[in-house]
Amino acid sequence: MLRDRNDTIAAIATPMGEAGIAIVRVSGPGAVDIVNTVFRGKSMLNCAESHTIHFGRIVHPSDGPVDQVLASIFRKPHSYTGEDSVEISCHGSYYVSRKILETVIGAGARMADPGEFTQRAFLNGKMDLMQAEAVADLIHSKTALAHRASMEQLNGRLSSVIESLRESLIELCSLLELELDFAEEGIEIVDRERVNRVFEQAITELESLINSYGYGKLVRDGVKVVLAGNPNAGKSSLLNLLLQENRAIVSEFPGTTRDVIEESIVIEGIAFRLVDTAGLRSTSDKVEQEGVRRSNSQIDSADIVLLLIDSSLSSTAKGDHVNAIIETYPEKVLLVFNKIDLLDDRARRALPGHVEGVEISCLTSEGIANLLWRIHERAIAHCDSNSSSVKIQSSRHRDLLKKTLENVESGHLAYEKLLGSELVAVDLRTALNYLGEIIGLTTTDDVLNTIFSKFCIGK
Amino acid sequence: MLRDRNDTIAAIATPMGEAGIAIVRVSGPGAVDIVNTVFRGKSMLNCAESHTIHFGRIVHPSDGPVDQVLASIFRKPHSYTGEDSVEISCHGSYYVSRKILETVIGAGARMADPGEFTQRAFLNGKMDLMQAEAVADLIHSKTALAHRASMEQLNGRLSSVIESLRESLIELCSLLELELDFAEEGIEIVDRERVNRVFEQAITELESLINSYGYGKLVRDGVKVVLAGNPNAGKSSLLNLLLQENRAIVSEFPGTTRDVIEESIVIEGIAFRLVDTAGLRSTSDKVEQEGVRRSNSQIDSADIVLLLIDSSLSSTAKGDHVNAIIETYPEKVLLVFNKIDLLDDRARRALPGHVEGVEISCLTSEGIANLLWRIHERAIAHCDSNSSSVKIQSSRHRDLLKKTLENVESGHLAYEKLLGSELVAVDLRTALNYLGEIIGLTTTDDVLNTIFSKFCIGK
Repeated sequence: MLRDRNDTIAAIATPMGEAGIAIVRVSGPGAVDIVNTVFRGKSMLNCAESHTIHFGRIVHPSDGPVDQVLASIFRKPHSYTGEDSVEISCHGSYYVSRKILETVIGAGARMADPGEFTQRAFLNGKMDLMQAEAVADLIHSKTALAHRASMEQLNGRLSSVIESLRESLIELCSLLELELDFAEEGIEIVDRERVNRVFEQAITELESLINSYGYGKLVRDGVKVVLAGNPNAGKSSLLNLLLQENRAIVSEFPGTTRDVIEESIVIEGIAFRLVDTAGLRSTSDKVEQEGVRRSNSQIDSADIVLLLIDSSLSSTAKGDHVNAIIETYPEKVLLVFNKIDLLDDRARRALPGHVEGVEISCLTSEGIANLLWRIHERAIAHCDSNSSSVKIQSSRHRDLLKKTLENVESGHLAYEKLLGSELVAVDLRTALNYLGEIIGLTTTDDVLNTIFSKFCIGK
Repeated sequence: MLRDRNDTIAAIATPMGEAGIAIVRVSGPGAVDIVNTVFRGKSMLNCAESHTIHFGRIVHPSDGPVDQVLASIFRKPHSYTGEDSVEISCHGSYYVSRKILETVIGAGARMADPGEFTQRAFLNGKMDLMQAEAVADLIHSKTALAHRASMEQLNGRLSSVIESLRESLIELCSLLELELDFAEEGIEIVDRERVNRVFEQAITELESLINSYGYGKLVRDGVKVVLAGNPNAGKSSLLNLLLQENRAIVSEFPGTTRDVIEESIVIEGIAFRLVDTAGLRSTSDKVEQEGVRRSNSQIDSADIVLLLIDSSLSSTAKGDHVNAIIETYPEKVLLVFNKIDLLDDRARRALPGHVEGVEISCLTSEGIANLLWRIHERAIAHCDSNSSSVKIQSSRHRDLLKKTLENVESGHLAYEKLLGSELVAVDLRTALNYLGEIIGLTTTDDVLNTIFSKFCIGK
């Protein structure tokens, strides 16, 4: 069950902590009147026009003045939620913002649930469900690419793709109805070629959207870079060096991501998750075997594998494991020749993978900056190949698109097999339902509750 | 040197973290124009009236749209700083708020120093120095009393007391000038009684303000409660129990203070700092002697001493240390009879300090809630005895008031000794200077820099 929407909700909308400003947000039919009863200023808030700001004090009925504040008035439907809203801007003190919230709740508002402001914005038609989900993604975005993807979704670019897919399916439905109407009369009024074309276009678009999930996920969750190689090739040294050099060279905002994901770096707006692995070698030791097994599983799920080779050893010493990885994952692997400080120029030129590989020295840091750029280049190449279309980022969207695709395909099959328009129409209506769920046209309360409960309070 | 005030400053004004809303604050002569160049909305910000809110997008010149925002416009002098200001309300994402700040700085603003917005408010005459200092205190306030004290200071109650003191001293100066003018003619035009009265009133007021510092500091920094007693009287058990019970019984906002001050509790709006001490006893052990010495020093600086007595022992077993504390600090001490679970009713009635003491059992928790209220009562009694006058909270104010007092007193002495009006006037002018420093009339740039550098950025 969704919460009642006829009451007025309130919450602190800024992060906890001490700062210049904190905001207490109030929304609902009683928002302006409730705040007005605890506000003392030159003007009465209940006479104030939308989008105006008023200086005054919030006064607790028994405890007296709480703070000097600015009250911003928004009249429905011209607010975030689509309802009457007030934003109270106070001094950024934990005590003060809590006390103002307490005062407003004492005056008749109730504490908002997580995401309830955005939920109301959705229910009042201010945004569709995809846009509402983009709000949460935007807040959590930590890199330029993740930010851009959520902004596009928030601006409705993804929604309009889903809308146009829905229109195609609706067009198919009406073509089939037309066919049905004239079928009894034995007239073939609808061009079967045209119907097939619309089916095929829809299927192609659905497939491309579903495939974009991998990229979308990568943008949102970061590129997984696994460091692999023989024991003592220098994997852990390289990991430390990458973390350290990255901070010096490319970190736009030092400290941004370090607290959130361990051993993660951001290069020019793309997040990379660095994973160190156990050295690869044949062994009879049970514990070490398990280590190698885990390394292989990490390599399997990696987006990029930095395969470290000790270039001071002879080229035949690479070992079966390393060769197997190169053969199995040719596209993922980036060969990294470590310890080049031990080689002279001639030995360097003789390196087997010289052309595609990167030469580095963890000892002297030579080549590390170059390696960072090569890693970035790999990720960018991945982006460019997909840059023409929009990308989906959410597994909810992917799952619904897959269900849509299944039904469109089975509808198409039924159509080709001449199984009758009614059967085809059933599939299409199911497909339309799934598409509608993505943008929130046909979404159950349970699904909505699940989505919005992941929001923070005050959003 | 204070920073240039002709440029436009910008900073994130909300705490770091993920939440519904973040605010980027911009202030200075170019504030509206600068934001306007990166703002895309229905209306142009540079045509907008003061105290209006505008929906639009912040667009980075090369990276594209950053976020959907609300821009609040404030025209000078009707803003916090007294300058043209814009507050950009964006989604509460670390990435987004940083990117908007970057965009605004790219458009011509510069990063604000800590406290620079409030410094400008002070320099533009929007508030005096005491009020500016109250802003920082208000933000850091964690209890109802600390909050109320800073609100009073922010509202100018303390400033007006200082102002009226200044008026008294200025009155004295003009009376003395009058006397000087007519002195040559041998006419005694000024009533010496009246001058003495004004002197004495000013001295009384200054003394009372200086004395209020103890209380003001207590409100701001909390009441120091020291647990003392013989070894094994149960001090540490009581400490744990108080922390734990307090959470259950009286904590208004669980978790508020725990992170900030270790072993601190808030009872009905007053912060108490609980300090455990080593058991008191005569000993030849050097380490233990040091422990007892430290306990005594804690007791000396305590506001309240909870003196624990093991009531299962005979009353003569209290020991010299305990008796000495009762004699030395009769007003601070609250006798706490622990282990009453070991006594029958008759033995309880026979307890020596029965009337003034509190009986508890750390084993059964009996009497702990009562003890909490008694501690609170002590603090409240302290408040009421001072409630008629305003209190100072800052050592800066106290030191300046002390210097003022010294000069007023030496002026008074000179006046009484008929040392000549010029000498008295010199003292009074020095006193006026010190008073002026408190509210910022005669404050050097260095002092201002020191005060505002303690603020957070964005305030």
